[in-house]
Amino acid sequence: MATAPSVSYSMTVRLEVPASGTAVSQLTTVVESSGGHVTGLDVTASGHEKLRIDVTIAANSTDHSDEIVRKLREIDGVTLGKVSDRTFLMHLGGKIEMSSKHPIRNRDDLSMVYTPGVARVCTQIAANPEDARRLTIKRNSVAVVTDGSAVLGLGNIGPQAALPVMEGKAALFKRFAGIDAWPICLDTQDTDTIVEVVKAIAPGFAGINLEDISAPRCFEIEARLREALDIPVFHDDQHGTAIVVLAALHNALRVVEKDLGDVRVVMSGAGAAGTAILRLLLAAGVKHAVVADIHGVVHSGRADLADADADTPLRWIADHTNPDNMTGTLKEAVVGADVFIGVSAPDVLDASDVAAMAEGAVVFALANPDPEVDPAEARRTAAVVATGRSDFPNQINNVLVFPGVFRGLLDAQSRTVDESMMLAAARALADVVLADELNANYVIPSVFNEKVSGAVAGAVSQAAQQSQGD
Amino acid sequence: MATAPSVSYSMTVRLEVPASGTAVSQLTTVVESSGGHVTGLDVTASGHEKLRIDVTIAANSTDHSDEIVRKLREIDGVTLGKVSDRTFLMHLGGKIEMSSKHPIRNRDDLSMVYTPGVARVCTQIAANPEDARRLTIKRNSVAVVTDGSAVLGLGNIGPQAALPVMEGKAALFKRFAGIDAWPICLDTQDTDTIVEVVKAIAPGFAGINLEDISAPRCFEIEARLREALDIPVFHDDQHGTAIVVLAALHNALRVVEKDLGDVRVVMSGAGAAGTAILRLLLAAGVKHAVVADIHGVVHSGRADLADADADTPLRWIADHTNPDNMTGTLKEAVVGADVFIGVSAPDVLDASDVAAMAEGAVVFALANPDPEVDPAEARRTAAVVATGRSDFPNQINNVLVFPGVFRGLLDAQSRTVDESMMLAAARALADVVLADELNANYVIPSVFNEKVSGAVAGAVSQAAQQSQGD
Repeated sequence: MATAPSVSYSMTVRLEVPASGTAVSQLTTVVESSGGHVTGLDVTASGHEKLRIDVTIAANSTDHSDEIVRKLREIDGVTLGKVSDRTFLMHLGGKIEMSSKHPIRNRDDLSMVYTPGVARVCTQIAANPEDARRLTIKRNSVAVVTDGSAVLGLGNIGPQAALPVMEGKAALFKRFAGIDAWPICLDTQDTDTIVEVVKAIAPGFAGINLEDISAPRCFEIEARLREALDIPVFHDDQHGTAIVVLAALHNALRVVEKDLGDVRVVMSGAGAAGTAILRLLLAAGVKHAVVADIHGVVHSGRADLADADADTPLRWIADHTNPDNMTGTLKEAVVGADVFIGVSAPDVLDASDVAAMAEGAVVFALANPDPEVDPAEARRTAAVVATGRSDFPNQINNVLVFPGVFRGLLDAQSRTVDESMMLAAARALADVVLADELNANYVIPSVFNEKVSGAVAGAVSQAAQQSQGD
Repeated sequence: MATAPSVSYSMTVRLEVPASGTAVSQLTTVVESSGGHVTGLDVTASGHEKLRIDVTIAANSTDHSDEIVRKLREIDGVTLGKVSDRTFLMHLGGKIEMSSKHPIRNRDDLSMVYTPGVARVCTQIAANPEDARRLTIKRNSVAVVTDGSAVLGLGNIGPQAALPVMEGKAALFKRFAGIDAWPICLDTQDTDTIVEVVKAIAPGFAGINLEDISAPRCFEIEARLREALDIPVFHDDQHGTAIVVLAALHNALRVVEKDLGDVRVVMSGAGAAGTAILRLLLAAGVKHAVVADIHGVVHSGRADLADADADTPLRWIADHTNPDNMTGTLKEAVVGADVFIGVSAPDVLDASDVAAMAEGAVVFALANPDPEVDPAEARRTAAVVATGRSDFPNQINNVLVFPGVFRGLLDAQSRTVDESMMLAAARALADVVLADELNANYVIPSVFNEKVSGAVAGAVSQAAQQSQGD
């Protein structure tokens, strides 16, 4: 699949060109004929002989950027200046900062924000610990915690290299839900140590967002932290994805007029996201699910499951899916299936596999950047197709969910996050798409739909209050 | 000592008073005769019969506030409305927040701040870890870490009750040095766990400010973290105080025309701050120092030192002070001394003790809020008096130091903080007071002197670069 030019590979190139002649007009032609897009062209200095021009160009990869720069250099009379990468420029010095809510102009301000006035506030909280949620940042603060072991599709790149993702996540928390999040990048990948560290830093936060921690450690870390802490702990790679998938599936099934309880769902991938999606689908009412991993369909008789402990994720999958005890390959399993959900690897299916699915097939091919099946080819026979990519319709994007989920949890001062809240979030997200908006290319709203975060937050907050009332 | 009314005990009282009659004029009289100050009086609604008035009043304690409210209620015709505490109002919802440096308006912004563009930045840092200081918040971020064991003068109030202080500290870091600090309040007071937790969270920060951790654990925690980490670790209660004291002492000795190498210094207190002050004074050239604690003067023959390990702070003090092997009480030690520095408890000395000191005595009575000796009485015979309080001249306040010290460390990308940098900070802070400004009531600049932070930062940065070059 060719990728379209994108601003995430955008650069600004400074050029000096002769004021007369054809060099200027050649610039755009050269960029476009190389497959790039000129998104801006500014003359920053002009003289009788020379023009200085800043050209902003979208490419589709780093190699592509290099190639375009090389071709620009070959234009007669052009001198190349500085090449600035817009994405890197945005990251210089980091993307987030800490701000004070009150100016500190004089000794009076100082004596209230800091000593001696602050002592009275401390004393109040020491006497009534619940006042920490009223008189400190705790009420609105979330720690974005990673060990850098499974960052995006990049793998185990470590805590410092993961920091730009965590900063971005913090920026999105603020943008979409007004939450103050701070990245905590851990210099350990030991399960016990991570649990101990997160427990220790919890007092200053009202929620923990675990991020990009590899399976299977992520399951145990989350479970132990949920047990130990009195604030909600949410591994977004698992549950954020699961909630968006369920929301999109709700709407896709409205498009094809099928019921969640009737469809046969085939999943590819039994990692962190796959397991969480499966659990949430079952909780939502799916009855016929089959999961395949790299060794084929998961069934209780499979050789690698004979000795597995009862609490391994794969064992749990075998016990809760595949009621007909199907065996064989993924490709065999999808024949006649209503829904395919892939959270695995590129190109595990082809167009003929999708064609073999049931009438009104729903295909969610979420491997990123290269999906399980080419979405354009899948769309020839499937009724609804969704991917994780922003350049196709129906993008399954966690940004739709995590800000609103945490907003709801914080608003309800929830001490936990459970399946009822996640189901409520999925339903609320699905319902943002109105009946007269719904169609095969719009089963999930845009990230920038201003209704999303508030709708999810309201539903989660309500579910959390009910859950705490129980 | 009576405390003056302060805005840190400031409240706004809403009153309804008859439009005619003397009630309005009585308001101010009642407040002032009760010892409070009216700092604002706003008529917020007016009618033929009634006025609604918001009176803002500075008191000197919570009890005093209550008393003033009671007296206002007794005025004929006055109806009391809401009483708002200004300090508490400033703390509602916390004092700091996280902000994004870039707007996220559309998918282009999103694709650069977050996926997919962010992946290239992560890859770059994975390949060149030093780029974390260029492309992430690490370069400008400091963790303000506490276990809540020794918060202000309030003692062991725990991590949540300590949070308002840490937020205030973060706000001051930004105000005075443009640093992004975030509070990390630990739910543990175990030395090993604290060391492990701070080591684990270090990758996202360029410095660790330890805060309000009780002695003697603070010494071991700081020493082990300095050994383990490649970023500077600075316990402000120790070294921030020590730097300000040394700076003030430099200038006080200029006033009385004595040399650091000649004076006899007597200290009261051998806790975290006392030990750090002593070490820095010795490093700066003090030769005659005597330390007293609650058991009297520390000397190597003292009973409680006979069995002490070589690495206990008290043993270190005994080995490095008191060259004449003086014994006895603090009061005996100060007779004839040039300098007294108290970081201990209220009223350990009286006016006659100060009168018994040498000609041109310097007295730093830093116990807060009640000093080791009444500063007004000390000033009758001492040449220079300093306290920790904001309502006397010469306030020894850490805010003068920690922002600039960290600014300098961060600017130099220093991996450590050592005595050379602290001595440079003290010298730079002292030199902010110009020769023609220097006098007995101005040996240390104001916290709001705009030159302070930059001067300290520049000196520390230079010393750090020299230290790394060695």
